[in-house]
Amino acid sequence: MKKKYLVKILQSVKTGELSIEDATRFFKEEPFLDLGFAKIDAHRELRRGVAEVVYGAGKTPEQIKKICEAANASPTLVTRISSETAGFIGAEYFTAARIGIIGKIPPPDGAGKIAVVTGGTSDIPVAEEAAVTAEALGNEVERLYDAGVAGLHRLLANLRVITDARVVIAVAGMEGALASVVGGLAEAPVIAVPTSVGYGASFGGLSALLSMLNCCAAGVSVVNIDNGFGAGYLASKINHIGVN
Amino acid sequence: MKKKYLVKILQSVKTGELSIEDATRFFKEEPFLDLGFAKIDAHRELRRGVAEVVYGAGKTPEQIKKICEAANASPTLVTRISSETAGFIGAEYFTAARIGIIGKIPPPDGAGKIAVVTGGTSDIPVAEEAAVTAEALGNEVERLYDAGVAGLHRLLANLRVITDARVVIAVAGMEGALASVVGGLAEAPVIAVPTSVGYGASFGGLSALLSMLNCCAAGVSVVNIDNGFGAGYLASKINHIGVN
Amino acid sequence: MKKKYLVKILQSVKTGELSIEDATRFFKEEPFLDLGFAKIDAHRELRRGVAEVVYGAGKTPEQIKKICEAANASPTLVTRISSETAGFIGAEYFTAARIGIIGKIPPPDGAGKIAVVTGGTSDIPVAEEAAVTAEALGNEVERLYDAGVAGLHRLLANLRVITDARVVIAVAGMEGALASVVGGLAEAPVIAVPTSVGYGASFGGLSALLSMLNCCAAGVSVVNIDNGFGAGYLASKINHIGVN
Amino acid sequence: MKKKYLVKILQSVKTGELSIEDATRFFKEEPFLDLGFAKIDAHRELRRGVAEVVYGAGKTPEQIKKICEAANASPTLVTRISSETAGFIGAEYFTAARIGIIGKIPPPDGAGKIAVVTGGTSDIPVAEEAAVTAEALGNEVERLYDAGVAGLHRLLANLRVITDARVVIAVAGMEGALASVVGGLAEAPVIAVPTSVGYGASFGGLSALLSMLNCCAAGVSVVNIDNGFGAGYLASKINHIGVN
Amino acid sequence: MKKKYLVKILQSVKTGELSIEDATRFFKEEPFLDLGFAKIDAHRELRRGVAEVVYGAGKTPEQIKKICEAANASPTLVTRISSETAGFIGAEYFTAARIGIIGKIPPPDGAGKIAVVTGGTSDIPVAEEAAVTAEALGNEVERLYDAGVAGLHRLLANLRVITDARVVIAVAGMEGALASVVGGLAEAPVIAVPTSVGYGASFGGLSALLSMLNCCAAGVSVVNIDNGFGAGYLASKINHIGVN
Amino acid sequence: MKKKYLVKILQSVKTGELSIEDATRFFKEEPFLDLGFAKIDAHRELRRGVAEVVYGAGKTPEQIKKICEAANASPTLVTRISSETAGFIGAEYFTAARIGIIGKIPPPDGAGKIAVVTGGTSDIPVAEEAAVTAEALGNEVERLYDAGVAGLHRLLANLRVITDARVVIAVAGMEGALASVVGGLAEAPVIAVPTSVGYGASFGGLSALLSMLNCCAAGVSVVNIDNGFGAGYLASKINHIGVN
Amino acid sequence: MKKKYLVKILQSVKTGELSIEDATRFFKEEPFLDLGFAKIDAHRELRRGVAEVVYGAGKTPEQIKKICEAANASPTLVTRISSETAGFIGAEYFTAARIGIIGKIPPPDGAGKIAVVTGGTSDIPVAEEAAVTAEALGNEVERLYDAGVAGLHRLLANLRVITDARVVIAVAGMEGALASVVGGLAEAPVIAVPTSVGYGASFGGLSALLSMLNCCAAGVSVVNIDNGFGAGYLASKINHIGVN
Amino acid sequence: MKKKYLVKILQSVKTGELSIEDATRFFKEEPFLDLGFAKIDAHRELRRGVAEVVYGAGKTPEQIKKICEAANASPTLVTRISSETAGFIGAEYFTAARIGIIGKIPPPDGAGKIAVVTGGTSDIPVAEEAAVTAEALGNEVERLYDAGVAGLHRLLANLRVITDARVVIAVAGMEGALASVVGGLAEAPVIAVPTSVGYGASFGGLSALLSMLNCCAAGVSVVNIDNGFGAGYLASKINHIGVN
Repeated sequence: MKKKYLVKILQSVKTGELSIEDATRFFKEEPFLDLGFAKIDAHRELRRGVAEVVYGAGKTPEQIKKICEAANASPTLVTRISSETAGFIGAEYFTAARIGIIGKIPPPDGAGKIAVVTGGTSDIPVAEEAAVTAEALGNEVERLYDAGVAGLHRLLANLRVITDARVVIAVAGMEGALASVVGGLAEAPVIAVPTSVGYGASFGGLSALLSMLNCCAAGVSVVNIDNGFGAGYLASKINHIGVN
Repeated sequence: MKKKYLVKILQSVKTGELSIEDATRFFKEEPFLDLGFAKIDAHRELRRGVAEVVYGAGKTPEQIKKICEAANASPTLVTRISSETAGFIGAEYFTAARIGIIGKIPPPDGAGKIAVVTGGTSDIPVAEEAAVTAEALGNEVERLYDAGVAGLHRLLANLRVITDARVVIAVAGMEGALASVVGGLAEAPVIAVPTSVGYGASFGGLSALLSMLNCCAAGVSVVNIDNGFGAGYLASKINHIGVN
Repeated sequence: MKKKYLVKILQSVKTGELSIEDATRFFKEEPFLDLGFAKIDAHRELRRGVAEVVYGAGKTPEQIKKICEAANASPTLVTRISSETAGFIGAEYFTAARIGIIGKIPPPDGAGKIAVVTGGTSDIPVAEEAAVTAEALGNEVERLYDAGVAGLHRLLANLRVITDARVVIAVAGMEGALASVVGGLAEAPVIAVPTSVGYGASFGGLSALLSMLNCCAAGVSVVNIDNGFGAGYLASKINHIGVN
Repeated sequence: MKKKYLVKILQSVKTGELSIEDATRFFKEEPFLDLGFAKIDAHRELRRGVAEVVYGAGKTPEQIKKICEAANASPTLVTRISSETAGFIGAEYFTAARIGIIGKIPPPDGAGKIAVVTGGTSDIPVAEEAAVTAEALGNEVERLYDAGVAGLHRLLANLRVITDARVVIAVAGMEGALASVVGGLAEAPVIAVPTSVGYGASFGGLSALLSMLNCCAAGVSVVNIDNGFGAGYLASKINHIGVN
Repeated sequence: MKKKYLVKILQSVKTGELSIEDATRFFKEEPFLDLGFAKIDAHRELRRGVAEVVYGAGKTPEQIKKICEAANASPTLVTRISSETAGFIGAEYFTAARIGIIGKIPPPDGAGKIAVVTGGTSDIPVAEEAAVTAEALGNEVERLYDAGVAGLHRLLANLRVITDARVVIAVAGMEGALASVVGGLAEAPVIAVPTSVGYGASFGGLSALLSMLNCCAAGVSVVNIDNGFGAGYLASKINHIGVN
Repeated sequence: MKKKYLVKILQSVKTGELSIEDATRFFKEEPFLDLGFAKIDAHRELRRGVAEVVYGAGKTPEQIKKICEAANASPTLVTRISSETAGFIGAEYFTAARIGIIGKIPPPDGAGKIAVVTGGTSDIPVAEEAAVTAEALGNEVERLYDAGVAGLHRLLANLRVITDARVVIAVAGMEGALASVVGGLAEAPVIAVPTSVGYGASFGGLSALLSMLNCCAAGVSVVNIDNGFGAGYLASKINHIGVN
Repeated sequence: MKKKYLVKILQSVKTGELSIEDATRFFKEEPFLDLGFAKIDAHRELRRGVAEVVYGAGKTPEQIKKICEAANASPTLVTRISSETAGFIGAEYFTAARIGIIGKIPPPDGAGKIAVVTGGTSDIPVAEEAAVTAEALGNEVERLYDAGVAGLHRLLANLRVITDARVVIAVAGMEGALASVVGGLAEAPVIAVPTSVGYGASFGGLSALLSMLNCCAAGVSVVNIDNGFGAGYLASKINHIGVN
Repeated sequence: MKKKYLVKILQSVKTGELSIEDATRFFKEEPFLDLGFAKIDAHRELRRGVAEVVYGAGKTPEQIKKICEAANASPTLVTRISSETAGFIGAEYFTAARIGIIGKIPPPDGAGKIAVVTGGTSDIPVAEEAAVTAEALGNEVERLYDAGVAGLHRLLANLRVITDARVVIAVAGMEGALASVVGGLAEAPVIAVPTSVGYGASFGGLSALLSMLNCCAAGVSVVNIDNGFGAGYLASKINHIGVN
């Protein structure tokens, strides 16, 4: 809880505006709605315009619908759902990203552009999860797909996408070398996303993950395997620093 | 290479200012000095004022000295060295951080403050590597040490440090839960640094690393185990977005 | 075998009440019924009222039925079964917990309450296995679901559930940080249950498991991944210390 | 923070006894002393008689001394220290357990006895850490060492130690089978402690750890490899349920 | 190739009985039939009565049939096949063991009995693979199932099965403690078979495997996870030492 | 980019043949066709006769078709596809190898023969991927299947295949010992391919992979688990050294 | 406990020869001497001539001396000790094997010979631990060292050692392929001992261990990494089947 | 044994030139000298001029000396030894490579040049092991050190070294991305050598190893971590194909 809220509540108690019981309850019970199976941030009316995010995997369509209604935010992103679930909750569906969005995507208001780069064609779903998330959170996104380091000229030929961006998201499976190369070329912070694309000794993304963590280039950090959403969300945070 | 450089070189070739041989050589040979055992970025005169960083581990004091002289930058950070090496190369030594700095640390010119938080007392060396790096790169740093989640009140009582920062660096070993809790409390991007502090099933930092990668809170990314430098460098990049 | 039984048998041998052959056989053959594919504790008539537990996974409905009949206890818990199997053996079925119960759940007779806390919505099945097990063994259970550390206020607002309990069961997947935070807040012993909920570097629950084992807070111990039954059973044991 | 404290503070604010500034500060700053490198619980005068525990590994003797003085509790346990450090801080030293204790060990006031069992001779240091911790926290401890399952008769001959205890701590390295066997024999809760004793495929305690987590016997939970302190502390908590 | 064969061939070459070309070819081409996809030992007519073993997994029914016909042995064991495949190749099918046998199982001619012990009911398929293999190779087998260490009395009550055997096969999943306990009780060599039975931190049999390898009891060796065939085959070899 | 290309472009710029804009674009945009989801090497007309390779896994038949058309090479290998996809894109299908080939396989023009050896029957699909790849790239291939080290005579009897080859590809799962034995017998370089064939502690090919990496015989190198294509491609490169 | 002992004790109780108290005590207390830090089998007088084995690692020379005196057996093997410790306890020291032996090694009385084979020179210490153990337990041992599969002719040239043995112990580090090759050549049971010899991806013996567990040849089982003693002990057991 | 030898021996037997006993002995005993602790290839007089290689790690200087004398080859490479050992055996010592060479390094007679590239300064010892090995085996070697992908321009500026080579050895620790980038740029076969350089999640070279195995670029194979010798030896084999 931010300090100003605390001071305000204590002042209201002092003036009698707020009873001790209510203040106690406020400290303990107010900040969210309890749906039983999930707890939703309340007081959203104070924060209108901010996107709500629901992680859809492992939840039933009914649970998701109730959470979205309780959240009552625009836009509401629901990640990792099927098109059927998107239809059921009345969301626009982004197939490659497996994301449903209720409400309107806001116009970009970040400080610059976010570049989303992939090593191969098979990394595109994770990259799209990142890109659509970033767009839904108010960012202009530039995509550069299938630009892996095995064919370095494809990456170098599009260097501008990387050098123009304020944040770069590098998405790659297999050996994950893309993060190192992009990290060496970019001025901007690089968020590396290992993907589970690969076979054999890629061990479900472990190889790419370790590779990215050991990245020699400074300015690179890593999120969980296949976590496109996390990368897009973090990139948006960075791109909005000093903006809102 | 940025497009404008390329265009400029091609123009010089066209006008005859630059011979084909020289242009070819420029493409191929110019951008660094070759010390044999190391290659140093040349043309630094064009980039005066920017800090140079030398990773000291696994290099002899003599090699480090030669690299620093070739780099000729102020400040020059040399990480992971002993105080003896720092003395040998004429650097100011930061004991806890194991960093030597040649030249003057610039005044802070970032957009905001960087918070460095640790779970325990034993995580301080890694945290100091991050903090001193960030300071040397022109950032104001606020430290909050021994504030791990097992005694949550110690963290909550200093919430201001976290909520005031533009970037938060969360440094923790053992179970690494600090990243999740800080990630849930902070508005700013959080860079999580797992440390090798711990014993038994901490497996040299693996437990903290996995924990941080699986962090439920969005807005958190991870660097390599014990990589305080990488966290400080990245935090500085983010803190200078829109500044320089 | 407890000493008093041994003494009693030896006395009967001495008095001739029990032949040497029978005593030998008793040592060797009596304590259980042998169904061929399973061995069931006999002499249960001496222990009426104690619940029997059958681990259902990997057994056919027919095998489970025969074991339940041989056990002849009330209640009999059968874990990890489908509703079909529950119907086949005549058990009441607890869907979320995947447990069937034959006979009557006894009224709570433990010393206090057991709190079952989860990090997220997806951890509920494991939590319910723990909760229903504890209830079937005579405990009052209080549930606190979706109270993970990424939204710390949801946990703090329900602190009472944790501070009131005599035993706390903390169920979480992904980074498993819940155990550390709950361990720091609770006075009571905390049993941590890692779940296989998550993706990527959660490696089927390994991340949560390591995190919980490395928990900085004292008073926390861990059971196998997804082992809700084990946690509920152990919590009941602790809650009945000094009671029966 | 417990509810009653919160209510009390709010009441004081309402009556004017406590200024808003002070209340705010109380929420934020009071509960501990900040030594810079460590944060110590304050208000200990309210909790005199309760043992303080300091984890000594990775701290300098000077840091440990300052923490002990700030804590000002009797007894204060300092774990994982050398006899030199124990001398420096004026603590009685328990060699096998590597624990220093400042102040007086209280008389046992738990509900029953705690049994500490080891598989082999080499597991004794970890077992002693558990045993001394439990004794310092007011428990009667019974030791049963070198009773591993490879010579089952040694364990069975001392069955009484296990069946008499209110809590059993089973300490074993290598294959860790002791936990399963003890878990099947004991009525009481069993806390299993894997040790790093072994070679080859014991992988520093991993084999014992996995074995104990997979323990077929219900009523067994596990702490970190070599974490004797954690086992002793938890055992004491369980043994004092319903006592204080 | 045994020395006597070599001498014989060289003698035939000397006498001219065998041309150099033929001898060369013999060295290089004779000892097996080449089916293209598989190579079958030829000269079986010299070794009639010895069982042939075909590993069925990953082979088509047609391939298996051709291999069996080429082998032309009685009995021929085909492991890891379905009942359909068994029917197709004209083999008697042992359901629990997933083994098909063509021809007649010989009467037992080993030196003693082989005991096959399992920890639980779910380990029975692997145990049966071992038992049927051993029987097909001419051994008397005694089974003792569901005798795991969590209920030690079930094992101790059947101690005779273990002490009477010339070789003991201990089959267990989860924590694999059975091998240690049986190893401590048996005079005979113990072959431990870890199974993939379990969940969570059993990691597909890894926990049992490590546990068995670290077994404190001497006289125990281990085969691959779920490798019932290997255990039965090796047990038969040991049981026939000094017999044939 | 090779130096001669660079010089040529610079010359054209100097003479005015090539405008600066076009040269810039050439550096940046020319070397491939961008299909959006994939980037294809252009200027293939300069390299006619060289095979193109498309990795089929994770791509739709439509995407594969477009890539093949854009590549416009003969032959074009498409790996890891079904016979349906092969039909759809008009490719000849090699069932065991799961490879489709568009166009004509060229006559062998390598320096010698490539031997492909497998340990067992189940390794044949990976071996065929290697063999067909090598044949499509202009090599004569000799196959030696089911020649694993457990029946060493089958390998020794065909020693000629190994000693005659200019490159040997050793394909084996389970313990992967084939690579060591072949490496000790062959004069030629050996490319070892671990396969995921096996069960239990083969851990999806990890056992064979580690075994091959630790191979005592010099002259052996390893590719990814199941990577038959990579082995065939590399073998062809080596076999064509000094040829083209 | 063997049945005949049980019957005898019960008979003595019936006849009054043995009081109930004594019989109880016998069941519970007799079978070993308790040294506090170790428990030694008593009643050894009944078993004179059988070797006692003490695992020396992690025990002080004083502890070892007391255990040896309490055991009072000839010979007594003490494994993994230094020559100093051997001197201190009055044992003959076998340097390469790191074994001390008190008393006289008995003449060989096994059924046949035990072959001990190593892959390389560095595996000799583990092999010697196996060989000396087997000799001390009454076996004739034949050694075949540095006969690894990379130079297959060295192994084949000594085939007789392998084919003549009743039991074969195959000791190898790195890729562990020796076990597979020996397993394919030997008629006798093969005990494979992985060693920690190697570097890089041998991971302390893990590579050899996995390789040996996945061994295609039937008739091979595995003991722990570097466990020469276990292999020698088990080989002796097998070699004495049908003998004593 | 090559076919021609076999034929020759058989002919000699037929003509009586060679007695059956001698031929038998030849098959069984001739091909090496047995030093007891090591077996050395004999008949070297037939192969004069070929280098002998001795792996020095884990051997005493005396053993190494005896092996070198028995081998009697020029040059003899002894890898992984100290300068003291090199002096003791009379070898020229290459410090960075830790290799001693007895005799004269032959003039290069390979088909082309071998390029040895490293990612960083710390990878140089492994690279030198590869380079000196290749030189000693008759190859011209070109070194390109500290050219890692984080500063891609350093690599691109020296592209000629890579494009001119007949074989490329890519040596890198940490994330191992060098192999992918070099693999994408080189026409020649690339041998990737992961090094144990790094910290944290590099896990002793595992990260680089996995990265290199998953390398997207075709034409790349991998040897063991830090195995510079293996890479140099294999590169020499490839570079001499078609030459000798």
